[in-house]
Amino acid sequence: MSHQLALTTYIAAFVSELVSSGVEDVVISPGSRSTPIAMVMAEHPGLRIHIHVDERSAAFFALGIAKAAQKPTVLLCTSGTAAANYYPAITEAKISRVPLVVLTADRPHELRDVGAPQTIDQIHLYGQHVKWFVEMAPPEHSEELIRYARTVCARAVATAAQVPAGPVHINFPLREPLIPVLENDQVFIQAERTSGYVKINLPTISLKEAEFNHYAELIQTAQKGIIVCGQIEDGDFSSAVTAFAEKLQFPILADPLSQLRSGEHSGKWIIDTYDAFLRFDEIKQRLKPDLIIRFGSMPVSKALSFFLKENRSAQQIVVDGGVGWRDPSMLSTEMVYCQETIFCQETGRRLSVTSVSQYAKEWQQLNAHTKQALAAINETKELSEGKLFYQLAELLPEDAALFVGNSMPIRDLDSFFHYNQKRIKVMGNRGANGIDGTISTALGAAVISQPLYLIVGDLTFFHDLNGLIAAKMQQLNITILLINNNGGGIFSFLPQSNHPKHFELLFGTPLDLDFSQAVQMYGGEFTSITDWEHFRTAVMQDREKKGLRVLQIVTDRNENVKEHRELWNVVSQEINEWKNLD
Amino acid sequence: MSHQLALTTYIAAFVSELVSSGVEDVVISPGSRSTPIAMVMAEHPGLRIHIHVDERSAAFFALGIAKAAQKPTVLLCTSGTAAANYYPAITEAKISRVPLVVLTADRPHELRDVGAPQTIDQIHLYGQHVKWFVEMAPPEHSEELIRYARTVCARAVATAAQVPAGPVHINFPLREPLIPVLENDQVFIQAERTSGYVKINLPTISLKEAEFNHYAELIQTAQKGIIVCGQIEDGDFSSAVTAFAEKLQFPILADPLSQLRSGEHSGKWIIDTYDAFLRFDEIKQRLKPDLIIRFGSMPVSKALSFFLKENRSAQQIVVDGGVGWRDPSMLSTEMVYCQETIFCQETGRRLSVTSVSQYAKEWQQLNAHTKQALAAINETKELSEGKLFYQLAELLPEDAALFVGNSMPIRDLDSFFHYNQKRIKVMGNRGANGIDGTISTALGAAVISQPLYLIVGDLTFFHDLNGLIAAKMQQLNITILLINNNGGGIFSFLPQSNHPKHFELLFGTPLDLDFSQAVQMYGGEFTSITDWEHFRTAVMQDREKKGLRVLQIVTDRNENVKEHRELWNVVSQEINEWKNLD
Repeated sequence: MSHQLALTTYIAAFVSELVSSGVEDVVISPGSRSTPIAMVMAEHPGLRIHIHVDERSAAFFALGIAKAAQKPTVLLCTSGTAAANYYPAITEAKISRVPLVVLTADRPHELRDVGAPQTIDQIHLYGQHVKWFVEMAPPEHSEELIRYARTVCARAVATAAQVPAGPVHINFPLREPLIPVLENDQVFIQAERTSGYVKINLPTISLKEAEFNHYAELIQTAQKGIIVCGQIEDGDFSSAVTAFAEKLQFPILADPLSQLRSGEHSGKWIIDTYDAFLRFDEIKQRLKPDLIIRFGSMPVSKALSFFLKENRSAQQIVVDGGVGWRDPSMLSTEMVYCQETIFCQETGRRLSVTSVSQYAKEWQQLNAHTKQALAAINETKELSEGKLFYQLAELLPEDAALFVGNSMPIRDLDSFFHYNQKRIKVMGNRGANGIDGTISTALGAAVISQPLYLIVGDLTFFHDLNGLIAAKMQQLNITILLINNNGGGIFSFLPQSNHPKHFELLFGTPLDLDFSQAVQMYGGEFTSITDWEHFRTAVMQDREKKGLRVLQIVTDRNENVKEHRELWNVVSQEINEWKNLD
Repeated sequence: MSHQLALTTYIAAFVSELVSSGVEDVVISPGSRSTPIAMVMAEHPGLRIHIHVDERSAAFFALGIAKAAQKPTVLLCTSGTAAANYYPAITEAKISRVPLVVLTADRPHELRDVGAPQTIDQIHLYGQHVKWFVEMAPPEHSEELIRYARTVCARAVATAAQVPAGPVHINFPLREPLIPVLENDQVFIQAERTSGYVKINLPTISLKEAEFNHYAELIQTAQKGIIVCGQIEDGDFSSAVTAFAEKLQFPILADPLSQLRSGEHSGKWIIDTYDAFLRFDEIKQRLKPDLIIRFGSMPVSKALSFFLKENRSAQQIVVDGGVGWRDPSMLSTEMVYCQETIFCQETGRRLSVTSVSQYAKEWQQLNAHTKQALAAINETKELSEGKLFYQLAELLPEDAALFVGNSMPIRDLDSFFHYNQKRIKVMGNRGANGIDGTISTALGAAVISQPLYLIVGDLTFFHDLNGLIAAKMQQLNITILLINNNGGGIFSFLPQSNHPKHFELLFGTPLDLDFSQAVQMYGGEFTSITDWEHFRTAVMQDREKKGLRVLQIVTDRNENVKEHRELWNVVSQEINEWKNLD
């Protein structure tokens, strides 16, 4: 059998198995060495092909699809630096537990490390940042090797999906000629399973009966319990944890990425303004817990993080269905490896009903008063970052997906996006919290979730400007709320802002870019918002529009710091009044 | 001593040593964890600070500076995915032997792998792609640790510069508070050397007397010898190798990156059209060598590569001052580790003068006839890629640096940029031959070399569009010749072009972008060339202009293939006539 026929059958077996394993989306960057895999993939009716020239954006785009679809997405690129461009998205996928199957084409063994063009060492290219690495055997057409290609593929997809989900890397050494034989339409039939290929069953991460009993007892004894929820993706978690909290009468401190700030579940125990009121020592003294139950990743709030650290004598149960170690302050007294929804359900049904404590009531009251104080932001006449986030809950349509940038946006969302009963899914790249790849990740998510809104600052927008091309080439719909304060807004909240000498050079970094030109180049519509009425109309109108829309809100970094500080003062006064009433 | 004072002194010692070791340029991307290093660097009068928000572009920018300056350049970024964005440039630097010192800030040990924000595993982040990795000790102010910071720094710079030059990676675990104490102006004085710090002497890679004698004898016996020169950076090499060739009466097949196609050295033995005439079997039969001496990396010409493979029975001496293994076809009979200029000089002076052979004359004649045939390209009326490259030698000013993109531009340069006596330095990223980071590398080179011209295709231009911001923020002068054939031109020369079904989707990948908008956003001037007269005027005018200038030449991918094929026919005819005369 010819080289090309062997190449074709081997790769067709791999590609068939991708589809059998449930993969639907493949993000391909053009290149020469990857030609046979790309051509075979394009031939398979079961795959949706997304072309992306810039591999860095391509990888984040795949990350976005996988994040929104909650299943493995495939990446393919040629040999050399192309593959190195995947690295940022891969490190993010690893930590944020997003399943990716990364396929890289490579020179065959005899052309490695000998000065051949477009050749870098791709063995373990991503080091510790992938869950699994496989250097494939060079293509051969023997029953053994076809079976091997299928088995590696099935295992790669399963490994990516298995908790904690994450990226895997498969490297393909390919010899010339690189053109597959696609003339007959038997290519996938020849590579089809006969029988006996392996189906992989993934485990459920749970506890023994006795352990659930133990935790039910432990939790029931608490006088002052709280639940803390960080980023969590499981769609069933919201109702499970709110039922659990109802039985315990525990407040739930709900991070914006917990999916608890929006939805049809009960809002009775949702605390969504702790980032504001946990800034005050007296309040923190009143609210000292004796038991903390934590689900999901670490919440974004620094005030909450300090509060938890200051209560290191409390029992702290960290429940992690991803079997990791999400405890940067070393506060856990129990590290529990159990899928979070199962934990709530199983422990919950072992609990007897409790009465509401004064402690729990105080959390509710403080949350209500703080929320009232924060509403002051809505009176702001000028365009402001805080008010923008405050208005989102009202303006976003039902079933919207909201992708939020790192640095300031996620923090402002934490402060100003409060509990509502819309079905709004909140997403972000909160594994490594980079400002890179945000546009691409959001556009990837937009393949799956519609309507999709992205909210980012100007540095984040700039960092992944290339990502916008996906909106154009793949005709995706997205509305981007671009907060343009001409530089790195978060640094104005950090200690270096007190050292003006090199501040603008090293941290402020104003780019002075008129982004309307880039947006137009990508076929998008750019609108610079003039006032709040304009903003409201633009967001509402956008609901009807297709394609790429960018709404720019120009703000001022110094004014923004001032506004935030003034608001914490208003909150402080409100809380003082509440205490005096008390 | 306080934490912050210890932090300051430790970092100031490291930064002082950078300057003592000869570093002048530092490329910094803004971030929080890297704050103390950035602030101390900004304070040092001996460093030139370049700010770049996008770390991928930043790394290529540093690569460009290091490539042009031929000395180590420093990169600094914060923790997390920021550091992963350096990877493409690092893999390129490793293979193309460019010295980079990569500094990454990191969380301290207690915040790693525990769900802390913006934290990825940075230990050996770049795997095999750096020459040296050091995880620094957390900052301390003891004499021992200050001495350690200085020693690691000196060693890092030396390791980067030592042949083969390449990237090194130093990872800094830093605890909060991150603000250094810069109020008194003693910071560098306190960190100053007292005495006894180490000065590092790098070795000269050379041979013993007896070995030079051996090679002189070996070479002198050849009847049909040729010299092949790939990319080489040493400024003294051109005159050394041309003197060597003159003594031997050997033709020099000179790659465009050999620095032999331009310059004041003799052009007598320079063969610069072999890529055209080595396509013909009969010619290849006539020109079979018995000895090949190779310097530098593998030349870009595929025709030459086949020719070398077909002459595997010839003696082949590969001289590599970088102690690598640049021999993808496994043809070397002698792998010689000796600095190339030294080899030419030392072996050369042991040679007795030779008379010109008929064999050598044929190379010269073929080269002259082929060059005459290729001149036909200059008659093309329409805008064409070939003619563009043909005109460069005439249009570029004296002392220009020409940075050339990968894929088609470097191949067209090989075909159409012929020997001239201008001092034009030709540069490219020919380690891993990626299309990424090209704008940034060229802009980095423009910091050192002026005037600088970059010639790229549209996919390469798009891939690093973000890189243009350096021209704006750092007010650099660059003229970019943008060949816009709306997609991946090289694929039309590859076998997949015969398979139209998925060709445009997977390989053609037309972007349909009006780049004038992006160029204007970055404050550049964009000119779309209408005809050759316009081109000539625009290039000539640009000599006077400052800032970012983009001259777009729109071409057609199919026409381009046709033009190249027709031209090889002209060459074929010309060669046939020469044979008949013969």
